[in-house]
Amino acid sequence: MEREEALKIVKEQLTEHRYQHTLGVMETAIKLAEQYGADVEKGEIAAIFHDYAKFRPKEEMKKIIKEQGFSKDLLEFNGELWHAPVGAYLVEREVGITDQEVLDAIRYHTSGRTEMTLLDKVVYLADYIEPGRHFPGVEEVREIAKESLEKALIKAIQNTILFLMKKNQTVYPDTFHTYNDLVQKLED
Amino acid sequence: MEREEALKIVKEQLTEHRYQHTLGVMETAIKLAEQYGADVEKGEIAAIFHDYAKFRPKEEMKKIIKEQGFSKDLLEFNGELWHAPVGAYLVEREVGITDQEVLDAIRYHTSGRTEMTLLDKVVYLADYIEPGRHFPGVEEVREIAKESLEKALIKAIQNTILFLMKKNQTVYPDTFHTYNDLVQKLED
Repeated sequence: MEREEALKIVKEQLTEHRYQHTLGVMETAIKLAEQYGADVEKGEIAAIFHDYAKFRPKEEMKKIIKEQGFSKDLLEFNGELWHAPVGAYLVEREVGITDQEVLDAIRYHTSGRTEMTLLDKVVYLADYIEPGRHFPGVEEVREIAKESLEKALIKAIQNTILFLMKKNQTVYPDTFHTYNDLVQKLED
Repeated sequence: MEREEALKIVKEQLTEHRYQHTLGVMETAIKLAEQYGADVEKGEIAAIFHDYAKFRPKEEMKKIIKEQGFSKDLLEFNGELWHAPVGAYLVEREVGITDQEVLDAIRYHTSGRTEMTLLDKVVYLADYIEPGRHFPGVEEVREIAKESLEKALIKAIQNTILFLMKKNQTVYPDTFHTYNDLVQKLED
């Protein structure tokens, strides 16, 4: 799918603010893909569609999670996680994208997963560091991303865990597992 | 078992420094048990023996973990975790303590677990805040412990996760699960 067509489709699903974020993620994903040798076209498409389901009603997302048998514990944790797997589902069903690597990068862009692919990493990190992001610690992650995709991801996930713990909120188990997995692989 | 006999047994297993720590954990566990309505005698015995295996050779601990079929992922994570389940095993086998609540409090005093019992919580927290402990954040946990056992535990586990993440070390999954479990129960 061409960029213009993809952007036109996703624009209808998003607020203007979220669309601008999406453009930032797209640009950043392309740069990261080029830098780290990921498939640039897949990175571009996954980035464009990563937040496709962001503004679907919670009830619709819940229904899809239940009906499609997505990980049950999703519903016990922060609803902010839901749009990622639901997005992968809807992008396949409504937009007709069938590339599993692209769909996985969308599916895991919020939680991460163990054994993240290069494309997963590119989209996850692009979402975190795109130029429109302004929060404590993001500049440090941008700097680390110039040297190491994995180290930047570890720092990003640490920041996320820290942010949730400061608010005494739960942390989705896959996020913890992703952190451990990345640290273990870096040590090997 | 009487306190004096128990202390005599455990003293032989520990360095002087670790024995003094054990006395601190014992006193603190008794106070916490009284304060929060746990079984004081069980708290005392579990505290006395909580570090029983602390100075066993790593190879002996590894062997026991493998032979006894303890959670396999233990060996993939920090060796500092091993003395807790190995301690529970050896305290039963060598000292003859058979009370499962006491053994569980020893078993989970480092990792925690989901569904921690009151006794588990008392021993875990006593180990963290006993008067001989001096590290950043411990005084805050002592203060919180005056009001809520669970909130103090959450803060202690947050500190532990933070400490490990700052060193870019892995965090044992049960520690994460314990954190989420305590936060979720507090919210209910």
